Amino acid sequence: MTTRQMSLCAFLLRHGHHVAAWRHPDTDLVAPPFAVYRELVEKAERAALDAVFFADSVALTGAPSLEPITLLSALAAVTERIGLIATATTTYNEPYHVARLFASLDSISNGRAGWNLVTSDNAAEAANFGRDRHVEHGQRYVRAREFHQVVDGLWRSWEEGAFVNDKAAGKLLDPGRVRQLDHQGEHFRVAGPLNVPPSPQGRPLVVQAGSSEPGRALAAATADVVFTAQPSLAAAQAFYRDMKERVVQQGRTAHSLRITPGIFAVVGKTEGEARDKFATLQGLIEPQAGLALLGRMIGNFDLSGYPLDGPLPALPETADGQRSRQQLLTQLAQGENLTIRQLYERIAGGRGHLTVVGTAAQVADQMQLWFENEAADGFNLMPPTLPGGLDDLLELVVPELQRRGLFRTAYDSSTLRGHLKL
Amino acid sequence: MTTRQMSLCAFLLRHGHHVAAWRHPDTDLVAPPFAVYRELVEKAERAALDAVFFADSVALTGAPSLEPITLLSALAAVTERIGLIATATTTYNEPYHVARLFASLDSISNGRAGWNLVTSDNAAEAANFGRDRHVEHGQRYVRAREFHQVVDGLWRSWEEGAFVNDKAAGKLLDPGRVRQLDHQGEHFRVAGPLNVPPSPQGRPLVVQAGSSEPGRALAAATADVVFTAQPSLAAAQAFYRDMKERVVQQGRTAHSLRITPGIFAVVGKTEGEARDKFATLQGLIEPQAGLALLGRMIGNFDLSGYPLDGPLPALPETADGQRSRQQLLTQLAQGENLTIRQLYERIAGGRGHLTVVGTAAQVADQMQLWFENEAADGFNLMPPTLPGGLDDLLELVVPELQRRGLFRTAYDSSTLRGHLKL
Repeated sequence: MTTRQMSLCAFLLRHGHHVAAWRHPDTDLVAPPFAVYRELVEKAERAALDAVFFADSVALTGAPSLEPITLLSALAAVTERIGLIATATTTYNEPYHVARLFASLDSISNGRAGWNLVTSDNAAEAANFGRDRHVEHGQRYVRAREFHQVVDGLWRSWEEGAFVNDKAAGKLLDPGRVRQLDHQGEHFRVAGPLNVPPSPQGRPLVVQAGSSEPGRALAAATADVVFTAQPSLAAAQAFYRDMKERVVQQGRTAHSLRITPGIFAVVGKTEGEARDKFATLQGLIEPQAGLALLGRMIGNFDLSGYPLDGPLPALPETADGQRSRQQLLTQLAQGENLTIRQLYERIAGGRGHLTVVGTAAQVADQMQLWFENEAADGFNLMPPTLPGGLDDLLELVVPELQRRGLFRTAYDSSTLRGHLKL
Repeated sequence: MTTRQMSLCAFLLRHGHHVAAWRHPDTDLVAPPFAVYRELVEKAERAALDAVFFADSVALTGAPSLEPITLLSALAAVTERIGLIATATTTYNEPYHVARLFASLDSISNGRAGWNLVTSDNAAEAANFGRDRHVEHGQRYVRAREFHQVVDGLWRSWEEGAFVNDKAAGKLLDPGRVRQLDHQGEHFRVAGPLNVPPSPQGRPLVVQAGSSEPGRALAAATADVVFTAQPSLAAAQAFYRDMKERVVQQGRTAHSLRITPGIFAVVGKTEGEARDKFATLQGLIEPQAGLALLGRMIGNFDLSGYPLDGPLPALPETADGQRSRQQLLTQLAQGENLTIRQLYERIAGGRGHLTVVGTAAQVADQMQLWFENEAADGFNLMPPTLPGGLDDLLELVVPELQRRGLFRTAYDSSTLRGHLKL
């Protein structure tokens, strides 16, 4: 029985992570979205997961969904312990708004808020914010770094003792303990202080997912948790070691940054059942959806004119932050001589993340291998379908991890930072 | 028994509307804010009020509080019927964000969201968004009008039949029924469509509170409800008639815009008890807080150098949208020969709104008088203290209005537009 425990989050998309999940017979397309999410998150809380995690985009990409901060605020009112992590872009936002929203969510949830800080890499987002072209990648990270600095500064507006609450003396606040920020930088000038009272965590958890050079540098300087796509143990180990070195170079402890790769797991009671489940999903991929997904992942390149059963064409090098993903997929296609169809089938589920199709024991074996060999401090669970794919993870895989002593059986703290021992 | 029914909302501030409410013995300063609001809103729902209403500012002005959209999203999950109206400024926001947040709140709440569209009139807000000076008043309204146009356009992204949900055919959306906005205006370029699915109301309720000329023009063109500060029956009637004329000139029915003045009511079982309650609150005003409130209301003018028991000095005409309020207060001080102290005492509760101190019958008399004489279609209730001031309104005044047939005894619809018969 090991004392080191895995971090486990559930990464929930509207219909599940497989690109054809919405076509699965069990997927409910007409239920009110909040009711669907509420049931899923209540289940994740019964399994004592650290958090639920929601992606975001400020443009329509695929199926429409709820805005994550409103969704998590509503979920905060009907849950007690599970952490609530929402994505918010630094590219098309103002830090004062973002600082307020997460501070308020942290107060409402009694200390369970997390901010997944991203830069936007989707050109369609630019067009909703008055720009003809997307902000250039390097510049986005410069802005993101300063954005984080402002948000973090605003979260520190209230010194210990700022609230005097002395009715008799007529003194509510001690102005000497309220920190004016007076930030003046390249991208932002923000006076502060924040107008939300201090929350139970003080500063909500900060999550980041960038794998590029500036993304890694930003995460090493500022993040508590890194979410990452790693297809193999060797790649995950290289990433893990690089990030732990970077964080130590920043003067932080290696322990203060948690590395959590995504895992796309199709789970069956037998290996055969798992393979059948996966084959069913793969059979539901429409070529158009597969091409669109692949096109987005190789740098917004339109593949519709190329034969499905021919090779991937030579691609123009993408100018923005999708270069590492583009290279990964190009190398995969060349190395295994894959057609366009075979390539989109390969990413239709896990999108480049660790993918396991098998029994709970087989999935747990992989997770344990990564966890015990400097590849992961935990995982972001990516259910293929909802609710069935999440049920399989929570009812089959999590109990197996608990039997192995790798994951707690009940919460032992009340805040998200507490669950992660940060 | 009249068939026309009042609209009634509860306007909740952190500690109540009286400037000294936080010093009242019953005010809980340390309870978690969400728990406090939850209890208040559950009470308002038991009284079948149309909605709760939250103000907002993107700077610290007075006591810090929760951000209203996260707060209302959380409240949506623990209430069933009451409408949820949050303020969001058009001056320091982007329309794509605002459209998403309210569409998402409307989905989560099953059709109970309302947006109080304001322009920022507080200079401190500018400094949190990279500006040295506040945006000029007229320009703010030009921007607000275009902002509303974009938000409203984004809320109309989904035509009937846009969601095909045909799993067998592999067709989720019908792209021909998804409306691209492609807005290109002076202040905004927004491509759309919105990435939140259609909500039960389709378009959340739009509330406005401007009383200036451009504020009235904007409300007549775009609002469903106007919230207004009117100190007397005659003033309220003049405003009511002006707004109804304007809305008809816009080609809308007079009925399609509801005029709801605020009412600050201190209620007692006897008139004497009410007067005692009010005197207690007035006795708790610290001069510094009174001066700060008065200074903000006359156009951010610093009064701290003037003798409290001397007259109001001649004021520079305020350049922004506070001119009508400044004139109102200057005339009040001159007309009744009030000192600075007497003037801030006069506004310490109602801030220029209808103020009634008396029994439930006396308060209901005033409301009925305004309601039946073209001064109001309903009221925004401003409790002096919380929770006591709200309890008095819900337990004493609302039942009196129900006995008179002026307000329903239970909800007869499920959406906010439904409650207001809009």
